[in-house]
Amino acid sequence: MHRWPASLFFSVEAVKGLINGPTFLRTMLELLKRDGLARMTRFETRHGALETPCLLPVVNPRLITIPPKDLKAMGFQAIITNSYIIRNDPILKERALKEGIHSMLDFDGVIMTDSGTFQSHMYGEVEVDNEDIVAFQRDIGTDIGTVLDIFTEPDWGRERTANAVRVTLERTEKAASIKGGMMLAGVVQGSVFNDLRLECAKSLSSLPVDVFPIGGVVPLMEGYRFADLVEVIISSKMGLTPERPVHLFGGGHPMIFSLAILLGCDMFDSASYAKFARDGRMMFPEGTFHLSEMKGLDCDCPSCRQHTIESLQQLPEQERTRALALHNLHVSKREIDRAKRALLEGNLWELVEQRCRAHPALLDALRALGKHKQFLERFEPLSREGAFFYTGPESLDRPASYRYEKRYFERYSKPPQQLGIVFPDAERPYSRVYAWEMREVSQRADAHFIVISPFGPVPMELDEIYPIAQSVFPRTQDGDTKERTRELMERFSHSHEYGVSILYEGDETLAMIEALGDRRSSFDLDLSRVKAVADYQFGKVAGAALMEGRVELVKSKNTDKIRNVIVDGEHVLSMRAPDGFFSLRPPGARRLMEVFPSPQLRVVVMQDSEPFNREGKNVFCQFVKDCDRGLVPMDEVMVVNEKDELLAIGRTLLVAGEMLVIKKGIAVKVREGIKA
Amino acid sequence: MHRWPASLFFSVEAVKGLINGPTFLRTMLELLKRDGLARMTRFETRHGALETPCLLPVVNPRLITIPPKDLKAMGFQAIITNSYIIRNDPILKERALKEGIHSMLDFDGVIMTDSGTFQSHMYGEVEVDNEDIVAFQRDIGTDIGTVLDIFTEPDWGRERTANAVRVTLERTEKAASIKGGMMLAGVVQGSVFNDLRLECAKSLSSLPVDVFPIGGVVPLMEGYRFADLVEVIISSKMGLTPERPVHLFGGGHPMIFSLAILLGCDMFDSASYAKFARDGRMMFPEGTFHLSEMKGLDCDCPSCRQHTIESLQQLPEQERTRALALHNLHVSKREIDRAKRALLEGNLWELVEQRCRAHPALLDALRALGKHKQFLERFEPLSREGAFFYTGPESLDRPASYRYEKRYFERYSKPPQQLGIVFPDAERPYSRVYAWEMREVSQRADAHFIVISPFGPVPMELDEIYPIAQSVFPRTQDGDTKERTRELMERFSHSHEYGVSILYEGDETLAMIEALGDRRSSFDLDLSRVKAVADYQFGKVAGAALMEGRVELVKSKNTDKIRNVIVDGEHVLSMRAPDGFFSLRPPGARRLMEVFPSPQLRVVVMQDSEPFNREGKNVFCQFVKDCDRGLVPMDEVMVVNEKDELLAIGRTLLVAGEMLVIKKGIAVKVREGIKA
Repeated sequence: MHRWPASLFFSVEAVKGLINGPTFLRTMLELLKRDGLARMTRFETRHGALETPCLLPVVNPRLITIPPKDLKAMGFQAIITNSYIIRNDPILKERALKEGIHSMLDFDGVIMTDSGTFQSHMYGEVEVDNEDIVAFQRDIGTDIGTVLDIFTEPDWGRERTANAVRVTLERTEKAASIKGGMMLAGVVQGSVFNDLRLECAKSLSSLPVDVFPIGGVVPLMEGYRFADLVEVIISSKMGLTPERPVHLFGGGHPMIFSLAILLGCDMFDSASYAKFARDGRMMFPEGTFHLSEMKGLDCDCPSCRQHTIESLQQLPEQERTRALALHNLHVSKREIDRAKRALLEGNLWELVEQRCRAHPALLDALRALGKHKQFLERFEPLSREGAFFYTGPESLDRPASYRYEKRYFERYSKPPQQLGIVFPDAERPYSRVYAWEMREVSQRADAHFIVISPFGPVPMELDEIYPIAQSVFPRTQDGDTKERTRELMERFSHSHEYGVSILYEGDETLAMIEALGDRRSSFDLDLSRVKAVADYQFGKVAGAALMEGRVELVKSKNTDKIRNVIVDGEHVLSMRAPDGFFSLRPPGARRLMEVFPSPQLRVVVMQDSEPFNREGKNVFCQFVKDCDRGLVPMDEVMVVNEKDELLAIGRTLLVAGEMLVIKKGIAVKVREGIKA
Repeated sequence: MHRWPASLFFSVEAVKGLINGPTFLRTMLELLKRDGLARMTRFETRHGALETPCLLPVVNPRLITIPPKDLKAMGFQAIITNSYIIRNDPILKERALKEGIHSMLDFDGVIMTDSGTFQSHMYGEVEVDNEDIVAFQRDIGTDIGTVLDIFTEPDWGRERTANAVRVTLERTEKAASIKGGMMLAGVVQGSVFNDLRLECAKSLSSLPVDVFPIGGVVPLMEGYRFADLVEVIISSKMGLTPERPVHLFGGGHPMIFSLAILLGCDMFDSASYAKFARDGRMMFPEGTFHLSEMKGLDCDCPSCRQHTIESLQQLPEQERTRALALHNLHVSKREIDRAKRALLEGNLWELVEQRCRAHPALLDALRALGKHKQFLERFEPLSREGAFFYTGPESLDRPASYRYEKRYFERYSKPPQQLGIVFPDAERPYSRVYAWEMREVSQRADAHFIVISPFGPVPMELDEIYPIAQSVFPRTQDGDTKERTRELMERFSHSHEYGVSILYEGDETLAMIEALGDRRSSFDLDLSRVKAVADYQFGKVAGAALMEGRVELVKSKNTDKIRNVIVDGEHVLSMRAPDGFFSLRPPGARRLMEVFPSPQLRVVVMQDSEPFNREGKNVFCQFVKDCDRGLVPMDEVMVVNEKDELLAIGRTLLVAGEMLVIKKGIAVKVREGIKA
């Protein structure tokens, strides 16, 4: 498998110790569904389970815009309020301590509280102490309380920031020791210093905190510094262990939800819905619009449905604020729903790329993602249900594209024949149809064809795998796409010893094929495909190991595509039609086990799990003892016991680093159990 | 002014004859608001006024999915139904003839009928005759009836298509002669042959038809041939006179509304809402999704509000069809509302560019627009309220960008000094701030500065005009933008006799300025600005004419920007802060009249209008006798009588070609009348 350091950025061992030891870790999320870093999770609190991604509306206990129980009715399972404000108001303080925060706010869902960090930061040194405020949060029955961290401003110098991070971590450790039955949020600080963010996140991963807010980002969002926000989120995520939820503190604008969800933020909170409403501003995924400047109302939310733009503009101030606050909440919730749906349907990248056209600063953020494709590729699934839609040159910086480029150059063996290079043009775009066409002509010629595409060179053997066959490009190419294609072509021509022996375009290709004449057997071509796909999917020696012996192929009568690969009479592989990759059969698994030492291509399970997996039941995370550290979601894996006996074959749902530390949910969807 | 042939593509004279003569033209729209080709209009019918852009749901008289009166309640002012189906059903035929179509369908809004063209086309030669079906439509009281045109398929050859166009035009002429009190829709055919579309459109413009549907586009939409759709719409619009509404026949998907509206389509009709619903498909601006494959419901429309994705999926077929049909209609209507709002707020281009990321085929359509920037520029306003947001390299093919490039090279006089060329980088993007910075440094140096931007070279004198100062770019540049900038720089260095005398970048620029030392007077710079902006706005000789004499400048104390230009004691110009262009004062207008012969920069009004305009009242279209054929919206113009006496000064709302043939609404918003 493609490798990265066995230790992830966070320390798996430290986290495992934390989880399995006598700690006070309360959260342990279940990963319900994911796409790259993006994920849907669920975790338990004392007031029920919380499903993410979700937005926690901020409730100001002294200025309630929308009553908490109305928020519950709108579908918000959790809210966030400020313990500092409560503690500083004698009446509220007494009520909170006496009857508890849930009763005081008349809200029976999940309540998170902030600690006064922001107030302390904004209004100077105020009378608040970390231990006091954490104990207070615990005592009023908060579900998730927050450390009194130090808010790091983007204009601070490095030393001041590093110092603030150090103090924040000390306070977090202290807070964890007194949190009692409360979950604790330990905040990632470090401003725009990526290394400080990473170090802070790594340290937090080893502490018994339950939720990871990424803090200090409000000034970046207010300044439309979305590219910086991307850096902050990614460097934080690099250091955070995956079994606890990540909260984007103060991230409450629907403009950034899909992007932040793509990068693995699980929770958001918004005071903006109310602040913006008081200021007459309406939030949309496309941006903020001032009601007084709007020239129409095209919103279907329950609040706007009752209005025309004129009637909304003419409401008395208080009613207008309420109407706009409701609008802002509805739209925010809908946008999170939209991103969830995209995640489930496999087109979250496409959604984010659309959303990032709403403002040039968001386009900068999208372009900043390209710098992190190597990191993002570690979480990139082998394939997706949704097709790859090209929305602009930025699409080619997606990890799906980087994955193909990387594996092509690492794992594809040079073809043995003369080479025909095909440049598609506007009339012959990179598409399944085109690739098929090439295969047909190549069968009539003693040459091997490679189509030059913006993903990189596509030899005919790889033209059915994701994302090649599942991609849709516009016919007209932009300059960046042409340039990228050219660069990859150059890299390709340097990567093969013989260079490029034949170079034809369009009609010339066909003429060349006519001239060659000799018919190449379809069977040879199919064998090349099996080898190339197996190498790409499992590693460079896989093809040879799987195909050693007498190979027979079962092909679909309708599509002429390979269905099953039989070697020496044993069924070793089946090809999956939707993404062009292989499913393993037990004889195939055994062949791979011979050439790949444990734990490569494997998930090693504990003894308790063995009988279940042998019966074809799924592998649950809590039973994962070890695994190939290079596994990505949708990978085909062997489930083995500690003696490296094959128990089952299945497909991973998680990244390696996740199945090692997450303790709930399915790690491997088993297709076939192997009876003892 | 920048010129184009005095005759537009359609014949102004033929149209004028049609309008002013004893014709049967019923429609005469009022142009309420516009942005380029996009427009909001209103026209009268026998069943009330219709405001566009609007969608007409298709009602199948034999299979009613949503009853017409429910459609009215949803806000649809007009529907479309099929006269051919009614005529072929004996019971319906009798009812329609007896009680009228409005009573039969229980709908008191505007009813348009189709003629059976599509049925005839789809199901072969059916028994239908143009005159019969037009007379039938007239007799059942249809508000807008349709010719029996010939549906031209995209796979037809040229000759067959040309023949179909000829027959369609003959039938249209015949239909117009018998339409009676009914409005008649005369269909533009010609398939994907742009010249045939254009010729057909020109011919229709000279016939007394009232609505111009663009026909034969359904196969293009079904095949996602959106780039071809753009060509079809543009070549049709080129030939169509602007005083009658344009209907995109069968254009009923929210994916294409904003794009089609941008290109000047006023009316849409949709049978898809019901067809898609029967097939379990939901329409969104982002595309079509099959309900059975959807993994969430993030729609706020009144139909979806009542459902979860599961409850919607589990509805019995008939109820589900109704729910989805309502959804499809709501979403379609909202999308048209959204485009309207964008039009009014000055950011329709930005909306279209966002929407065109929903599918690579839409991105192709967006890229196809770039080929037509010269045509689109004729309708491009001088400035807009909304800022210019860059969403990708396609943004630079907008007519706003082309306008700047064109006028810069045509009208900007070479600067008299040494030249400093400044290349902005990521830290110094093309922005107002940056331009201001340059101005400051240039004041301290005896050099003239030009900032190289993707719009083209921006000399400091032009750095406040639209779209330069009102543009927002991402900090990170794509390859196409860099290349475009480079090409414009090259063109620039060839366009000045002296070539580029100084070439500095970043810190070098500042060092150079330090070395020069001599302080340049701010007054000289301001004079250059007045001249350059006046030349850009009015034409190359304008600056000299306006500034002949002793010039004084009144500047804003706060911003140091020029407010008023006084020459020889007379107030000739005021500068508009939002877009950086000039408003004329009467002495300025008189100076321009001396150097620009009539009708340049003028709108010539009829005698009846004179006393009103002299009192400062607006110029209405019906009183426009002649005008500068190069006028674009937001142009500063002189209103004169036929003796070329100055009556008023104001700003145009329409393109020249429109104010000559449209007979309702305001042509010039007068700012100042000149008493006799």
